[in-house]
This record gives sequence, structure tokens and C-alpha cells, in this order.
Amino acid sequence: MAESIRVGLLGAGRIGKLHGGNLAGRLPGARLVAVADVRLEAAQELAAALGIEQAYEDPRRVLEDPSIDAVVVCTSTDTHAPLIEAAAQAGKQIFCEKPIDLDLARIDHALGVVAESGVTLQVGFNRRFDPSFARARELVAGGTLGEPHLLRITSRDPAPPPIEYVKVSGGLFVDMAIHDLDMARFLIGQPVEEVYATGAVLVDPAIGEAGDIDTALTTLRFAGGALGAIDNSRRAVYGYDQRIEVFCSEGAVVVGNEVAHQATVLAAEGTRGAPLEYFFLERYMESYLREMEAFIRALQEGTAPPAGGADGRAAVVLAYAAKRSLDEHRPVAPHEVDPGGAA
Amino acid sequence: MAESIRVGLLGAGRIGKLHGGNLAGRLPGARLVAVADVRLEAAQELAAALGIEQAYEDPRRVLEDPSIDAVVVCTSTDTHAPLIEAAAQAGKQIFCEKPIDLDLARIDHALGVVAESGVTLQVGFNRRFDPSFARARELVAGGTLGEPHLLRITSRDPAPPPIEYVKVSGGLFVDMAIHDLDMARFLIGQPVEEVYATGAVLVDPAIGEAGDIDTALTTLRFAGGALGAIDNSRRAVYGYDQRIEVFCSEGAVVVGNEVAHQATVLAAEGTRGAPLEYFFLERYMESYLREMEAFIRALQEGTAPPAGGADGRAAVVLAYAAKRSLDEHRPVAPHEVDPGGAA
Amino acid sequence: MAESIRVGLLGAGRIGKLHGGNLAGRLPGARLVAVADVRLEAAQELAAALGIEQAYEDPRRVLEDPSIDAVVVCTSTDTHAPLIEAAAQAGKQIFCEKPIDLDLARIDHALGVVAESGVTLQVGFNRRFDPSFARARELVAGGTLGEPHLLRITSRDPAPPPIEYVKVSGGLFVDMAIHDLDMARFLIGQPVEEVYATGAVLVDPAIGEAGDIDTALTTLRFAGGALGAIDNSRRAVYGYDQRIEVFCSEGAVVVGNEVAHQATVLAAEGTRGAPLEYFFLERYMESYLREMEAFIRALQEGTAPPAGGADGRAAVVLAYAAKRSLDEHRPVAPHEVDPGGAA
Amino acid sequence: MAESIRVGLLGAGRIGKLHGGNLAGRLPGARLVAVADVRLEAAQELAAALGIEQAYEDPRRVLEDPSIDAVVVCTSTDTHAPLIEAAAQAGKQIFCEKPIDLDLARIDHALGVVAESGVTLQVGFNRRFDPSFARARELVAGGTLGEPHLLRITSRDPAPPPIEYVKVSGGLFVDMAIHDLDMARFLIGQPVEEVYATGAVLVDPAIGEAGDIDTALTTLRFAGGALGAIDNSRRAVYGYDQRIEVFCSEGAVVVGNEVAHQATVLAAEGTRGAPLEYFFLERYMESYLREMEAFIRALQEGTAPPAGGADGRAAVVLAYAAKRSLDEHRPVAPHEVDPGGAA
Repeated sequence: MAESIRVGLLGAGRIGKLHGGNLAGRLPGARLVAVADVRLEAAQELAAALGIEQAYEDPRRVLEDPSIDAVVVCTSTDTHAPLIEAAAQAGKQIFCEKPIDLDLARIDHALGVVAESGVTLQVGFNRRFDPSFARARELVAGGTLGEPHLLRITSRDPAPPPIEYVKVSGGLFVDMAIHDLDMARFLIGQPVEEVYATGAVLVDPAIGEAGDIDTALTTLRFAGGALGAIDNSRRAVYGYDQRIEVFCSEGAVVVGNEVAHQATVLAAEGTRGAPLEYFFLERYMESYLREMEAFIRALQEGTAPPAGGADGRAAVVLAYAAKRSLDEHRPVAPHEVDPGGAA
Repeated sequence: MAESIRVGLLGAGRIGKLHGGNLAGRLPGARLVAVADVRLEAAQELAAALGIEQAYEDPRRVLEDPSIDAVVVCTSTDTHAPLIEAAAQAGKQIFCEKPIDLDLARIDHALGVVAESGVTLQVGFNRRFDPSFARARELVAGGTLGEPHLLRITSRDPAPPPIEYVKVSGGLFVDMAIHDLDMARFLIGQPVEEVYATGAVLVDPAIGEAGDIDTALTTLRFAGGALGAIDNSRRAVYGYDQRIEVFCSEGAVVVGNEVAHQATVLAAEGTRGAPLEYFFLERYMESYLREMEAFIRALQEGTAPPAGGADGRAAVVLAYAAKRSLDEHRPVAPHEVDPGGAA
Repeated sequence: MAESIRVGLLGAGRIGKLHGGNLAGRLPGARLVAVADVRLEAAQELAAALGIEQAYEDPRRVLEDPSIDAVVVCTSTDTHAPLIEAAAQAGKQIFCEKPIDLDLARIDHALGVVAESGVTLQVGFNRRFDPSFARARELVAGGTLGEPHLLRITSRDPAPPPIEYVKVSGGLFVDMAIHDLDMARFLIGQPVEEVYATGAVLVDPAIGEAGDIDTALTTLRFAGGALGAIDNSRRAVYGYDQRIEVFCSEGAVVVGNEVAHQATVLAAEGTRGAPLEYFFLERYMESYLREMEAFIRALQEGTAPPAGGADGRAAVVLAYAAKRSLDEHRPVAPHEVDPGGAA
Repeated sequence: MAESIRVGLLGAGRIGKLHGGNLAGRLPGARLVAVADVRLEAAQELAAALGIEQAYEDPRRVLEDPSIDAVVVCTSTDTHAPLIEAAAQAGKQIFCEKPIDLDLARIDHALGVVAESGVTLQVGFNRRFDPSFARARELVAGGTLGEPHLLRITSRDPAPPPIEYVKVSGGLFVDMAIHDLDMARFLIGQPVEEVYATGAVLVDPAIGEAGDIDTALTTLRFAGGALGAIDNSRRAVYGYDQRIEVFCSEGAVVVGNEVAHQATVLAAEGTRGAPLEYFFLERYMESYLREMEAFIRALQEGTAPPAGGADGRAAVVLAYAAKRSLDEHRPVAPHEVDPGGAA
């Protein structure tokens, strides 16, 4: 077995704890050695639970430790770009939660620093590692289903975020549909040539007053001719609804929801199935482990990470195209919002 | 029990045979007494199989028979409007297969004659009577699911029709999506305010050469704010794919495909479920019986038929709006193609 | 097309109406020409609804009509054996609802008369014609699943019959499990060598007071070594529960329940599937049509019927073996209750 | 938060690694501090991967460490009883993989030592902690389904163990069905009064030559009258098949198989679902985490463990009753094989 990759964790919040637990107990190729968090107590608590000795307030303590090979960035979004840049300059391999940033120029700057430094950057598009979605991608990419014709993505949250969050979120497309736009790119494997978005405020008028929508239907046209539809809602009362379907010339692959258990009740009032997994931490639990495995493996084997900076950037471009389509009530090509790029 | 409704059947083709069998053996309130078909032999064969004495070549023989209360029109589309008019003028109650016609002016003329004569006209939107779709409609209309937010319809045929048929069909929206557009109206129960359609030729280039598309994704915006997406393909290699979903503020109703049987095979190479029902005659078998039951009941009780002339007209208008959206590459409001009407 | 088989229907009750409707409108090879019922009014009503001219009180009127080729016996059980004998002596082909009789000696006598007369006798084991069960049988018999190892049958009624019926029914094994015992023979295609039955009174103490049980678990050992378990209950509050499973060396086939529709509701309180089909008329609707098609086809082609007198007899033998096993609290071989026969 | 429970792991094989990973990264209330294995290298490798400092060859090193609160016994079956006794005498809390032993006298001796020492002993009946089975138990125990009437357990392995293992395994009932017999006790919550077992050699004649069976159907009668059937096979070519069903007076709960993913393929040759989870490590992954959580929680709260020594003993008794039933070809009461006990 190769020497373990020594990892420092930046951010000990909800997602940091999840990655930390995986690194400590379930990934033999990695060894978690340090945790930093702006709340020192949070770093210390997580370190204690995982049997780790180093706990810091300042992430620079981790970046300056020459024994550490890689960092996992789980801090707040606004710190992603500067931490990516600092880590790259310190020669650390980087796993960063999505999004890199909400601003294309800042993304480009950070990706430039990464490119110069030569380190690996993997962006946390964890859904790509979900066993079901990965299987769907594999089937489509492998060609056994023929050419893709139609894509359907249903992505609905169990409840909207607090209205204060909505106000600074960048809007439904950048904040929520961005995952689905990445999934669309991942599944079809072709550039998106046109986006048409419709939206409505049906869940909570306060969301509309904050200048956002809570319900959306986004149509995509891919370079190869395939058509796609993404539907989003900020509130599905029955739980986190995450389904995809790729219809191809020789067959289709359909991914239904994960459920909390397999127990079905047959009663006089009807058949009652298990509820859906509650939210992303439950639904995508396995994907978080698998994406970290993939990151560690990429480092060990010196291969490109399965979701890199360009993917992180492309999804942001598509989200801005959807936003403009909604605003201008017409189909929009991605290059209209990103004259120099390619989605 | 009320006196049986005496019915004459016009058209002894595939769909005529189906309605004839239902009228002869499964609808106690109706009695099939005559069959007419331009191929006299077809009329005679069906009459013999069903134990009916009267078989004619000329539909007028049926219309002139004063003992006959109602006619069921299953002839070719171009004869629908004239037969509706003739039947109405003869005072017969009318069940007519869809579409009434492909031309709005001819539809309007036929509906005018029906209105004047005072007879009942039911249009054969059989899918509305499918037990699953009817249950979905009932749930949405009953309000237990709250307000509709999102609608999804998947409607894919097992194989495209002959190219000669495609050429005269009026195009995918009028010929195929029209059923789904009616279903959208039926399920949501609100006028459609805007249609945006995208399409592609991915199944067969000959369809493109004939000026049509074979794959489409149509977005609808309803008066109450709900958004809908219909996806169509002329060829699903795995069979006739007919699913709908209505997502509402308090829950969702999802209708999956009917399958040919309930036998699932577990084998080393995986789990293999039953194939889908082959095509519309198999998939919608039950709905044909139920729509005829509803027609007979409407006649017996003197109530309005559950799918009338206005419904037949509205679906045609939406199909033309979709076609224009595709042609002009922009969202289109139904009144743009039907200045005087309302979809 | 061959000349239609002319059929007389004996019995215009629930099951008679069902077969009558199928014969009148859905089976082109047959023509229903007469109906008899001890309640003349019932015969007349059904004849009127189906457009049939002959309606009688006395079944002999049908048996004496030389233009009639075949009879369908849907009268009460105690009249089955004498009507089979009379019909056979009149040279009519016979379809008879199950059971032939509850008494082995009377069964043997009736089968003897049929054999002498040379007419065809099909027994109404309709479940064999259910598309799902037939598919399971086809898979097992075709050998693609290898050798059968384990069989599971779940068969539960929605509600127990009236206690007066229970008292004269012959008991749960003869009255209810007999269908499942036939299904076991049909699916595995091997003689049963041993039966072990356990039972309990859990649904209604009155059933116990009537000397019967309402819950049973019956184990079968087949000649080839396969083992089977049948579970029965007189009351499943959630509806008619009819499932089978054959586990074989190279795979398994599992048949789940039919449901009333495909609409699933997702709501805050969980996922709610469609209820099961209510009872046998709904659940096995399709099988009744198919068994009658098979009967007509056997007559037209002069082949053996797919479920004959020997099958009817064998299921009764197994039911008596189960009863003795329960009474004597030990495994019982069928030949113990039928020294001269073979199940 | 309470002080973490300090845990020593005995055995670093397949199941030891699993428990070790859970203790290191996913159970904040526990802290893994030492690993012992007869293969020192295995202990060292696991310790390195989990960031643990102490790795030993001799389990006594762990038992003698006064800083260690509890041990998790994952060694070979024959060492379970002596390690339980030694750990109890050292005052360690004990989690021990099943079975305690195959010999009732040795089990009784070990349980006696545990009782004297006053430590907690939890036996690794992990399936009780499977979210689906736990949900089923909760529904039955909670009474919302009424009284249990029928139980069905399907438990089939993907492939038989090596024939050398079969020879020393104690036979199918003790080695394999024991899990299902515990599940039956767990789900119904009533003593078993009678067992009737049938068996066959259908998978591999070598298993028969080794004096064992590979296919079994076991019938149970519970004290409250409920009946149960367990079917077992040593080889299901389609994977690990683990289903249960409890049918009660007011409804039923049915637990289907877990699948490897949710991606279903629709293709011309039919619908293809995901394969089953491969074997117990995959299928019961979640249950292993939950059982260890329950053990830690029981220690922290000073409550009785959810599966204790008496449960471990009772399942062995039932397995021996099944074995005798098969041998003597008659129903057997558990007290016949355990005159002093109660199953």
C-alpha cells in the first residue's frame, strides 16, 4: 500500500464533519491530521471525536505544515477562492466544496493560480459520485444506450432556506439549479447550446419580494441535438426529490429517489411506502465518501480529478444563462453571458 | 333499469372493433344494433362476430334509422366533421374519435351545427378515462394536493408511423402531442397562457426531410402560475412510454407506466421487469371502456359529456401554438394563433 | 375464419355474467346464443343486456338444442357434477367452473361419463390464465430458470365469507387453498409427495366454532425435491393479496399484486400507493377472458384443454391431504387420502 | 457530551475492520484506542489506517489496559466464549459477534460469568438494526398493525461457503438460519412453540455428502398463534436475497431487498433493475453502524443492550429444534432440545 495522503481539513461545520469522519475511518489511503475552523472550539471538538491531535483557528497553520499533502476546503463560499489560491501557492493538493465562487472573474483568477502552481483541484460536485447517477452516466457514456435524445431532471428541496439566505444566494439558478446544470453536463457529456428558463413564485411570496423565484422549469439544448428539462422547487412537502432520466436512441436510464428504508405498509387505507431521504446529507451520504475516495485516488495515481475547475466554472455560466433567459423571456446561448468561454 | 341506448357504429376498423366489442358485451346500458363501414365486408364481419344483424356500407343507412339513438364515429379523420354534422342534423347523439378536424374553421363549423341541433357530442379523449390519470385529475381537482406547481408529461411512441403518414399528419404537435396537451389541460384545469417548444430530428432523418420533427420538449405556463413540460419522442425502443406527474403545494401525484404483467425475473445478470404495454390499444384498453360508459351515462342522465367539442378545439389551438413557437424560436401565447378563442 | 362455436350459458349469476359478456363481445370465435338460470328473470335480464334471444329457466332447454356446440357451467357447485354428466351425454363440449365437486367419488363418476362421451371438459382454474402467473409458469417450464427449488404462494382474501357459508364450505383447504394447491401443481409441474399443514383461528372465533380455521401455512414437498409454502388468511384488511414466487437454480420469478391504478401520491405523511384490486372478479378479470379464449381455441383446434378433469381432481386430493395433516399434526402423503390416485 | 467510551478491538479481519472504521470515524461517543489480532501485521495495518497507536498480537494486552472501557470481539467463533469470560472478569463491557458458541453448555457458562461480573454483553445480531427490519419491528411492536398472524422470511445467500467450512459449520440451521430464527423472535416478540423443518440438497451434492442440506423451509408456530415460514437457500444466483413480511390483523409490513443503486434501464429487451446488494457486508452496512451506536449508547446510559446473551442462546435452541425436526420428520417443540430453557 502506498503511503497515506496526509490531509488537513479547513472548516468543521456540517459538511466538514462529514468529510472528516470519512477521512478518519473509512478511507485507508488517507490520514486526517489537522482540523481548522474559525470557531476554534468546533475544530477542537471534531478533532477530539476523530482522535486527531492538531486543531487550529487559523487555516494558515494547516497550509504552513509541510507534512500535510492536501487540504479539504469546507469553509463558507466567500472564502473558497482565497483559500484555493493560498493552498495552491503552498503546494497543497485541493478538494474544495462547490461553488468555487459566484463571480466568473474571481473563479478565473483562482483557476489561474491553481494552473500555475500545478496542484490538483477537485470541486465538490458530489452528486456525480452518487452510485445511481454514476451508473446512469456510465451507461450513457458507454454507448450501450445509443445517442441521448431527452434528459429530465427533477430537483426539489424539502423546504426553502431562510429568506435572509435567499437574498444573498445569487438566486435559484446559481444557488440551487447549479447542481442540476452540472448533472446535465455530466450525464449528456455535450456542451449546452441554448437555455430557456421559466420561473414562478408559488411557494412563498417573500421569495418573490426578495427578487427571486421558487419554482423553475429550465430547458436545455445540447450540441448533439438532445433536449433537456430541469424542474426545480424550493419546497416539496414530501421531502428531498432527486430524480434523473436520460432517454436515448437505444433505451433509457431512469433514476428514482432513494428511500429511508425498504419497509412498505399495507393497510386498509392503502399502501404506504417509506419516506424519501430527508435532505442532501442523508440522500448523498454515499456520494460524499465516493468523491473523497476519488480525490485520494487521483492524488495517489497522479491522474486528473473527476470534477475539476472547468466543470465548476461551466455550471456557473449555465446558471447565469438561465437567469438571463428568465429576465429577458427568450432563449439564451451560454456564450451570451460568457463571451470568451464554452459551457 | 332504463331502456338501453341503441347505438350505430360508423367505422369497423381497429378502434371501431374495440368500441363495438365493448358496446356488445360490456355495457349493459347500451345495445349495438348496426355497423357501417366503407368496406362492407369489414362491417359484415364485425356484425357477425358481435351477433348484430344490420351491416351497411353507407353510414347514412344508420343515420336514417329512427330506432337508433346514438352514433359512434370511428371513421378516418377527414370524415369526422361531415359525419358529425350529418349525425347532428339527424338528431343522433354523437361520440366522435379525436380529432374533430385539423382545421380550426372546420371545427368551428361542426361545433356550430352540433350546438344548433342540441345533441350531445363527446370527443374521444380516452386518456382522460384511464383509471390512473383520472385518479390524478381527481386528486388535483379535489384540492387535497393544494395548488399545482409543476406538471410533467412523458409521451413516447414505440415506433414512428410510416413516412407517408408523417407527411400528411400535420406534424408532431398536432398529430401526437395533441393528446398530451389535452392531458395538460385536463390535469391542471387552468388555461395555458404561454407555450415554448423545442424540437429535433434524432430518430429518423426522413422525418426531418418530410418537414417534421421526431423529438420535442414543450414548456407550458398556466394561468395560475404552474409550469409544465411535455417530452415527446416518436420512438422509444422499450415500448409505449406514458407517464404523468403533477407536483403541488401539498404533495404530488405520479403515474408510472402500465406493464404487461407483474412477473419480475431475478437472474444473475440482474432484475428484469415486465415490458411496457405495447401501444395505445393495450395501454388504454380500460380507458376506452370507461369513456364509452361515460358517454352512455351522460345520455341516460342528460348531463354534459366529460370531454366535449370545446376541449377538442382547445387542444388543437395549443398544438398550433407549439408549432409556431418552434418555427419562430420564441414563446407564443395561444391567442396569437387563435385571436378569437381561449385555450 | 372457422365457423363460430355456438355457446349456451348455464347460470346467470356473477360469474355467469362475466363469462357471458366475454362471449358476447370479446371472443370473435364464439357466439353466445342461449342463457339459462333457475331464476328465469336473471336469464332474461342478461340475455337482453347481451342482445341474446333465448333465455330459459331449465338448463335442459339448452342441452336439448342441437344447434348449440358447447356449454359454460356457472351454476352452484352441487349441480356441477350432474350438469357435466348431462351435457356430456348430450354431446356438448363443456367448460365448468371449479370445483367439479367436493366428493372424490362423485368427481370420478363425472369424469368417467365425460371420458365415455368423448367431449372436452375444461375446469375453470382461471388463475392459470392470469398473464403474470402464466408468464411465471412459462419461465419455469421453459427451463431458462433451471430447476425449481422453492415455491412461495401468498393467498389472502379481503374478508371471510358469511359464517353460514363457512359451515358448509368443506373448510379452508378445500374451499380456499384449493386454488393455491392447483397453482402449486401448475407452477412446479411435479407431483406433490408430502403435505404439512398448520392452521389457526386468528381472524374470527366464530370460524373456529364452526370447526374451521382462518389462517394457514401449508408446506409441500415435490417429487423433484423442491419445497413450497402456501400462506392463507381469510382476511387481509388491505385487500385481495395474491402473490407467487418460484425460486430456481438459475434465477427466480416473483409475481407481485395487481393494483387498481398506477397513481402514487407523495405527501408529507409519506408515499401512498394504489390499493390492491378488490377481489377476484377485479384481480382476475383478464384471466377469465383468456381461459375462455383457450377453451374456444381448444374446441376449434381439437386439442386438449389446458386445465382438465384430472387437474380438478388432483387439487381436491391435495386439499384433503392438508386437512388430514392439520388434524393429525404430522406430514401426510397424498396417497394416504387417495390410495388409488396420484396428485 | 459525556466522556468518550474507550474501546479495544479484538480481531482485525473483515468484520473487525468494519467495526473499527465505524468506531474511528463515525461514532463521536466512542474512541477506538487499541487493536489486537493473532496476525500482528493485520492489527498494525488496521491501526495505521485508522490512526491508532496500539496494535497487539495478544488480546490480553487489551484486556489488561485499565484505560479501556469496552471490547469488541470479532475473532473466530471458537474464541468467543473464552474471550467473553476473560473480558467479563477484567471488567470490560463486551460487544461480541454472533454466535456466542455452538454449544449450549458453553454458552450457559459464558453467560454465567457475564452475569456474575455485572458487565454488559451485547451480541452482534446486526440485522435487528437494519433500518427496514427495525421499522418493521417497531410497527409490529407498536400495535398499529394489530396482532401478528403470519410471518415470512426469505433468506438466501449468493453462494455456498467452501465445502470444508460446511463440514464444521454445524449445519444450515445453526450456521445460516440462525439469523432468521433470531429475526423471527425479534419481529413477532413471542416464544416459538413448535418448529417443523423440511430440507433438500438441490444446490450442490457435495453439501449432501458432507451431511448437510442447502435448501430449507422451516415452519414456526408462536405462542400467540401466529404462524411463520422461513425459506433458505445456500445459492441465489441473483445475489443476497433478504426479505421479511409480517402480516397482522390490521395490516402488513413488507420489507423488500436493498439494491445497489436506483438506476433502472428501459431497453428493447425489457426493464432491467439494479442488482441486489452483493452480500452481508454491503447489504447490512448501515446495521453494523447502528448496532455499535446502540452498544455505545447502552453503555453511556447504563441501559440493557438491545440484543443480549439470552437472545443469542434462544436462536441456537431454535436452530437445534429445526435440525431435530428435519432428522425426525415431525414437528418439534423447542423444550425437547432444551428441557430447562425457553426459546
